[in-house]
Amino acid sequence: VSEILVACAQLAPRIGELEHNSELVAAAIRDAGAAGADLVVLPELASSGYVFASVEEARSLARPADGPLLAGWAEAARTAGVLAVVGFAELGEGREVFDSAALLDGSGVLAVYRKTHLWDREKLFFAAGDEPPPVVETRLGRIGVLICYDLEFAENVRGLALRGAELLAAPANWPAVPRPRGERPPEVVNAMAQARANRVFVAVADRAGEERGQAWTGASTIVDQLGWPLAEATGEGEATISARVDLALAREKRWTEHADVLADRRPELYADLADTKHLLGKITR
Amino acid sequence: VSEILVACAQLAPRIGELEHNSELVAAAIRDAGAAGADLVVLPELASSGYVFASVEEARSLARPADGPLLAGWAEAARTAGVLAVVGFAELGEGREVFDSAALLDGSGVLAVYRKTHLWDREKLFFAAGDEPPPVVETRLGRIGVLICYDLEFAENVRGLALRGAELLAAPANWPAVPRPRGERPPEVVNAMAQARANRVFVAVADRAGEERGQAWTGASTIVDQLGWPLAEATGEGEATISARVDLALAREKRWTEHADVLADRRPELYADLADTKHLLGKITR
Repeated sequence: VSEILVACAQLAPRIGELEHNSELVAAAIRDAGAAGADLVVLPELASSGYVFASVEEARSLARPADGPLLAGWAEAARTAGVLAVVGFAELGEGREVFDSAALLDGSGVLAVYRKTHLWDREKLFFAAGDEPPPVVETRLGRIGVLICYDLEFAENVRGLALRGAELLAAPANWPAVPRPRGERPPEVVNAMAQARANRVFVAVADRAGEERGQAWTGASTIVDQLGWPLAEATGEGEATISARVDLALAREKRWTEHADVLADRRPELYADLADTKHLLGKITR
Repeated sequence: VSEILVACAQLAPRIGELEHNSELVAAAIRDAGAAGADLVVLPELASSGYVFASVEEARSLARPADGPLLAGWAEAARTAGVLAVVGFAELGEGREVFDSAALLDGSGVLAVYRKTHLWDREKLFFAAGDEPPPVVETRLGRIGVLICYDLEFAENVRGLALRGAELLAAPANWPAVPRPRGERPPEVVNAMAQARANRVFVAVADRAGEERGQAWTGASTIVDQLGWPLAEATGEGEATISARVDLALAREKRWTEHADVLADRRPELYADLADTKHLLGKITR
């Protein structure tokens, strides 16, 4: 059976309270399992909070991917019988700080992704990842992992679809922005468009609440492979949304006998999108 | 002054009636000028209709770009004092048929673009263009031209933004598709996302009515550079929508001091999007 229950836990971690947040995440993983979820997505930087005052503060809250923080969450995932995608502040080998996400289950950490598209002041506190977002073959299906602003770069999202992702799991911290009355948050509109353009499912876990004067949108969303929201949080604070999805549907890329979202690309016309100098280096090496 | 009035004329051409359709387009151009528009966008294949029975039928309705069809529209544009973007069936030098769009004004034809992403059964009747969509420096600003399904390929749209387009003019024939109650047509959601992702204006002229059993969505839309619709037709048949837009706003690509929709791309991570074999050919040549 390819139908699974996907949940997004929209939490309100507290900046600086690593222990509290670590347990908040573990509890959300356990709760998701108890509610029957197969996969649970949690917010970006759920371990640390987001609005840092300095690099030093960010670093003091960052932890290595192979340490007890993620081991604890994997243990919670084992108990709950779920896969989880969680955002955390990662301490790198050279003491750099990364805005990372881990995909983990009861067997441990399956993948760690370091955000490649840093938003705004994140550039002051984080090093950017140098590897494209991963697609992981899991027992549930092929899951792509990316983080918040990464989703705004269609080039990035397309790469995940081309590499076979069926569902994109995206921890996020969407800062509240003004929008016309009656409209969805622009990031949700984008998630809908990305899902449809690639015929993949998208599950975004947003932040709840406010932190050091920064309000979050609180618009966690699960979108189907045709681009329609299956479940949406609407800014009401902490919330868990969930939806039953059939990942096999994301393997069908055809709209009709003659139209296919991937095969209809014209890659020979997209050369200006990639860094050809970089490519030249690869070719001549 | 960079503020201009953009109009989209959602017409209902009649398949096979080239002369009727040619005059319908010319009249829409004149009407747009009379209403004060600076730029008017018209539907895809406005000259010919869309639902062809055979290649022969399509070819019989196709006309060269340098012939009287476009000259007549340029004359209408001269009278009206407007720029126009019009979709037409183009007869190529080798008698191929292209699904093309012309950008023209009183001085004549400024650019002809041949659709590169053919939708569904278009592949049975048309040859695909081999040149990326153009960005034309006009007296109003830099206008990118693309056609219908082209807009669904974010790679393609990004290329236009990278080459400086401020407004994307897209003739379209959006076939009616089911959607959840209360939702916009998915193509409009996509246009909103593309506009915001690139901070460009998007003006789509859709078809009205029905042709050989094919109903059209009739959802012509003008979207601002933040992704919000300024004007929308809502399936009511023939209609003209318009909006006043300040193209200078599309030159600002920054969200904040530290965030920029183009500069924040990571082109060195997008190599899998472009055809590298093609690129290798270019490099070693």
